Amino acid sequence: MSAPHTDVEEVEAANTAFYEALERGDFDALSSLWLTPSDLGVDEEWHDPADTGVISCVHPGWPVLTGRGEVLRSYALIMANTDYIQFFLTDVHVSVTGDTALVTCTENILSGGPPPQGEDELGPLVGQLVVATNVFRRTGAGWKLWSHHASPVLAENSGDEDDETPT
Amino acid sequence: MSAPHTDVEEVEAANTAFYEALERGDFDALSSLWLTPSDLGVDEEWHDPADTGVISCVHPGWPVLTGRGEVLRSYALIMANTDYIQFFLTDVHVSVTGDTALVTCTENILSGGPPPQGEDELGPLVGQLVVATNVFRRTGAGWKLWSHHASPVLAENSGDEDDETPT
Repeated sequence: MSAPHTDVEEVEAANTAFYEALERGDFDALSSLWLTPSDLGVDEEWHDPADTGVISCVHPGWPVLTGRGEVLRSYALIMANTDYIQFFLTDVHVSVTGDTALVTCTENILSGGPPPQGEDELGPLVGQLVVATNVFRRTGAGWKLWSHHASPVLAENSGDEDDETPT
Repeated sequence: MSAPHTDVEEVEAANTAFYEALERGDFDALSSLWLTPSDLGVDEEWHDPADTGVISCVHPGWPVLTGRGEVLRSYALIMANTDYIQFFLTDVHVSVTGDTALVTCTENILSGGPPPQGEDELGPLVGQLVVATNVFRRTGAGWKLWSHHASPVLAENSGDEDDETPT
């Protein structure tokens, strides 16, 4: 594959790197993909009323987590409780406006927990259908994640005219 | 109340206007709050490889909707099936970076459907706990919604150290 040369390709590569870091359980790689205010030239000692570059994250079914402390801690917990996770991404759509990129995708997830006590094998594999909106920001060190919001798809709903409204 | 004079106040006002349009069932107001590529100077006849300003929306439990056609049609359907809806917003957090703003909030929703056949009263009121990530873009006509992602909160989870990981 040739090196990405457009914004859309760069953003797609950053989005893929995010899921690959999760699959590998690579906490350092994951941390480096999330935006820090200093990536944007904001002095983190200063109280910034606009909260420039402050990250947020919603895992499926969870409330909002705000700031690197809460967000990264949640990933440490998830990694500690996940022995196997694989993301099959479909419907990846990228919209780039200036220095911000919005990625939506379907995360077809297959995951397994640690083995039950006294056993060597993985816990049962579980499939999940999740949709995500990922917001990236252009920085001097590449595109970084500003927000991740993932949620379970609870009903078949293709966007056709006979769709039911949510209840 | 004095006129908003900072980016954060302007974004908060746009976010409030979005939920107020939903409460009133005001489809035209709602439509005008969503970004159009032409707000950003993009000629909509041109095939833009970066999909600049293309909107997306995820309702709780739904798959992703992309583009004004799908997104606005979903709101028309929701409005047609909702006689009463009220949003009590809590935990509103705004992060502004350049011309993009990220708003996260908790939507405490109280809603009711149309009356059952042959009755005059509203259908039963239903409470829902939903969290949202709303992305706004600065335009010449004010801050406009680029993305809305809302999802049900399925478990009590306050971000404390004894949180459980999602399953």
